[in-house]
Amino acid sequence: MHAQSFTVYDLLARNAGCLAGRSALVTETGDTLTFAALRGRVDALAAGLAGAGLAKGDRVLVIAQNSAAYFELYFACARQGIVPYPLNWRLSAGEVARSCERARPRALVIDEAYREVLPENGAGLEVVILRAQIDGEPRGAWIAFDQLRAAGEAVDRPYVAAGDPFAIIPTAAVDVIPRGAVLTHANVVTSNLQTAAAMGLGPADGNLLALPLFHIAALGSGLAVMHAGGQNVVMPRFDPAEAVRLIDHHRLSFISDFPPVLVSVLDQAREQGSTLGSLRIVNGLDTPDTIQRLHAETGAEFWSGFGQTETTGWVTLQRFRDRPGAAGVPGPVCRVRVVDDYDRDVPAGTPGEILARGPTVFQGYFDQPEVNEYTFRDGWHHTGDVGRFDEDGYLHYVKRKPEKELIKPGGENVYPAEVETTIMELAEASAVCVFGVPDRKWGEGIMAVVETPGGLTAEQVIDHVGSRIARFKRPQHVAFTDSLPRDDSGAVDREAVKARWAETVAG
Amino acid sequence: MHAQSFTVYDLLARNAGCLAGRSALVTETGDTLTFAALRGRVDALAAGLAGAGLAKGDRVLVIAQNSAAYFELYFACARQGIVPYPLNWRLSAGEVARSCERARPRALVIDEAYREVLPENGAGLEVVILRAQIDGEPRGAWIAFDQLRAAGEAVDRPYVAAGDPFAIIPTAAVDVIPRGAVLTHANVVTSNLQTAAAMGLGPADGNLLALPLFHIAALGSGLAVMHAGGQNVVMPRFDPAEAVRLIDHHRLSFISDFPPVLVSVLDQAREQGSTLGSLRIVNGLDTPDTIQRLHAETGAEFWSGFGQTETTGWVTLQRFRDRPGAAGVPGPVCRVRVVDDYDRDVPAGTPGEILARGPTVFQGYFDQPEVNEYTFRDGWHHTGDVGRFDEDGYLHYVKRKPEKELIKPGGENVYPAEVETTIMELAEASAVCVFGVPDRKWGEGIMAVVETPGGLTAEQVIDHVGSRIARFKRPQHVAFTDSLPRDDSGAVDREAVKARWAETVAG
Repeated sequence: MHAQSFTVYDLLARNAGCLAGRSALVTETGDTLTFAALRGRVDALAAGLAGAGLAKGDRVLVIAQNSAAYFELYFACARQGIVPYPLNWRLSAGEVARSCERARPRALVIDEAYREVLPENGAGLEVVILRAQIDGEPRGAWIAFDQLRAAGEAVDRPYVAAGDPFAIIPTAAVDVIPRGAVLTHANVVTSNLQTAAAMGLGPADGNLLALPLFHIAALGSGLAVMHAGGQNVVMPRFDPAEAVRLIDHHRLSFISDFPPVLVSVLDQAREQGSTLGSLRIVNGLDTPDTIQRLHAETGAEFWSGFGQTETTGWVTLQRFRDRPGAAGVPGPVCRVRVVDDYDRDVPAGTPGEILARGPTVFQGYFDQPEVNEYTFRDGWHHTGDVGRFDEDGYLHYVKRKPEKELIKPGGENVYPAEVETTIMELAEASAVCVFGVPDRKWGEGIMAVVETPGGLTAEQVIDHVGSRIARFKRPQHVAFTDSLPRDDSGAVDREAVKARWAETVAG
Repeated sequence: MHAQSFTVYDLLARNAGCLAGRSALVTETGDTLTFAALRGRVDALAAGLAGAGLAKGDRVLVIAQNSAAYFELYFACARQGIVPYPLNWRLSAGEVARSCERARPRALVIDEAYREVLPENGAGLEVVILRAQIDGEPRGAWIAFDQLRAAGEAVDRPYVAAGDPFAIIPTAAVDVIPRGAVLTHANVVTSNLQTAAAMGLGPADGNLLALPLFHIAALGSGLAVMHAGGQNVVMPRFDPAEAVRLIDHHRLSFISDFPPVLVSVLDQAREQGSTLGSLRIVNGLDTPDTIQRLHAETGAEFWSGFGQTETTGWVTLQRFRDRPGAAGVPGPVCRVRVVDDYDRDVPAGTPGEILARGPTVFQGYFDQPEVNEYTFRDGWHHTGDVGRFDEDGYLHYVKRKPEKELIKPGGENVYPAEVETTIMELAEASAVCVFGVPDRKWGEGIMAVVETPGGLTAEQVIDHVGSRIARFKRPQHVAFTDSLPRDDSGAVDREAVKARWAETVAG
């Protein structure tokens, strides 16, 4: 229904009407864009995208560091119904090529710095937009980003429904090619409202856009604060000293956190003699020690919860101090269940798979109908995570389901299966088991136990992984054995491996 | 999509999980129901409704004063996908019969006190549920409400989508039969979130449910506070002394207001020596004098805006003190335009019709596809109200569009056309013009100027209207003339009538 539609572009247009002169975005070069100015730039960019032949439903891969342009690109695409498909800038050329296979994009927007990961054959891309000035005229399919904005004439908005895709965010390479979670405009808009209602966000808030914009944590926080009328301050890449400076200079109230972001900000603040006086909310995951430091050294609250890309961020949330160790209670538009292997609710205190339902649940994995049918069986999103409710209705996170075991170093998603497949390419490896271990700096580290008759070194294993897939997927810890424990079927007994080797690592 | 569904019932189920032991509802007899207890009662009532043969999509007329049961009925219907169709308890038997024609309900829930307005032939109703104890067994189609709850066995929930109807709320008798605005679950859930985000509602809030539950103002406020985890305290009918007592006793933070609710509460508070210390928000419409009294005499904020049943309440809103006289800025999920007769945007300062778009815009008028096509032309809801934006993006309300002129005495909807049609039934009336005039007590009063050769008294006119349609539609002011001003086409010149007679009334 057209009259019910409200897209991510509409939130900008709404703010450009009633908050026209307020700061919406501080760019990486320190310029302030008001909501009215931002809308103008977005409209011009939308015209440029349309002029380059991109239309509703087309997918655009993005490989870039944070910038005002990246943020604007999300809104310009939202206006036209074009669907950004952001990738982690640390992916290898092979991974980018596989993502192209999945995404079948019509265009690519890429930072100059990442040009080397471009597939040699261009992967059939019709338009490549470079985040750099190209001398002279565009060459072939190549267009400079800034030329796009200049070139466009005003274009009409096509009708974009609230249920149409806003973006496709890669999650994890369960089947080697990362899955893309399709988030709709309604997903994002409802999630924004839920966050704003829970945390009391308003025009006085300001968010440091320091985590990468291909992550739902950064994208979701940025959009929620903007939706509430607040400003975003862009950092191309996270740097703790600069983060403290920007928080203090712009009186920012909001940051997102995965280890080691917060601890490094607190260390820097101490060094610079700052109490981060404007900071009100730190939103993310961290260790109790670091969170207690935040509460002791600043006036900010740590907000945490359980969430996924597939749920547009938190489905349960709380202030950490409400129940330390818990993941909070279901958000006001989230239904959450904990069930056994037969989808029967289990009692409070018993762990089971976490199911979610509500308007922040994603539309499905892009172009994977069979996976979606399985994921959404019985009308609920099956998260693949295990948790338990306590007697008061607070969710407690337990672990990933074994078949979906996921390691999260510094908030990244690493699937053991992908790392294991890569290690098994080494002729000397006869079996391998990769799993997560506690890590003081990254929250979680990667450990590989390799079964080999001998002749492999830890360095060889680590270098091989780093040469084939993203460097953040390299194990920090490698152990060797001539025989991994196996179960009756002959498969590696993962729990037995963890029980024996996890303790050998100092967390 | 099932996994995205979140209904009005889900908000209760969510709260029954994580706020189980908190007060959800204080009944008219002073009993406190926790969220867990309320869910239990609602589930039992849902089973009773299913047992009485009511199923998804069936409409249930409701003619009742506020009660815990009325509130529970909304949730029980939401669980089963049954659609309540509440009527104003002050409608005449003729009006109820016409509403039945429109609604084609399968059941009626009615207070004993209003039994006399029941159509004699039962209007084809299969089930009549009486809000009173019936001695002995149910007789024929008649069931006592409390028996329903006792009779039911647990029933499964059918699948109810967020886009399915939650309720049909009558708006105004433009075409003699009142139109019914179909509000979906998504409409209400999104409106709740928007209100909670704007006003900062949470579990500590409590709402006095004093305005009638057939009005979007009362229903919307009650549901928003409940959604945020707060409690509702039921008043069968508004009474200022009791209102002050309940606010103070239950430490309530929230009331809804149409004149003369607030002024009478303030008068009573003064008399009882109360400062209404817990009151935080008064939400509605009132005169600047009364609002200034609220701010001077209590710590509460007056929230106001522009809204309709068709937009599930406010589409623009603000704290009154932000810009006295304005109707606020578009809510975070509302797009609002002001346009000329050709749907072209007019500049700031120029009045035009107010258009709205977003997830709180209703699905349409029940069973009136042609009206809906017209109302939703070009993908926007045409509100029939005239307003203007100022330079800062605040909306200012101007008036109803002439063809949709509406009088709102005490928040009720009275269409001049309906009152005029009724007066013209008098043989002595050759023409008539009905319009709104300022009224100190009700905010707006009704004036009728009757063209007659003589022989009519004001009392006759007033009594005739009161005998045919609801008593709140009776004019407070009647004037007579032997010749109403007419335009070139011979039609009554409404503006000329108002210019000449409105001033004769002391506001």
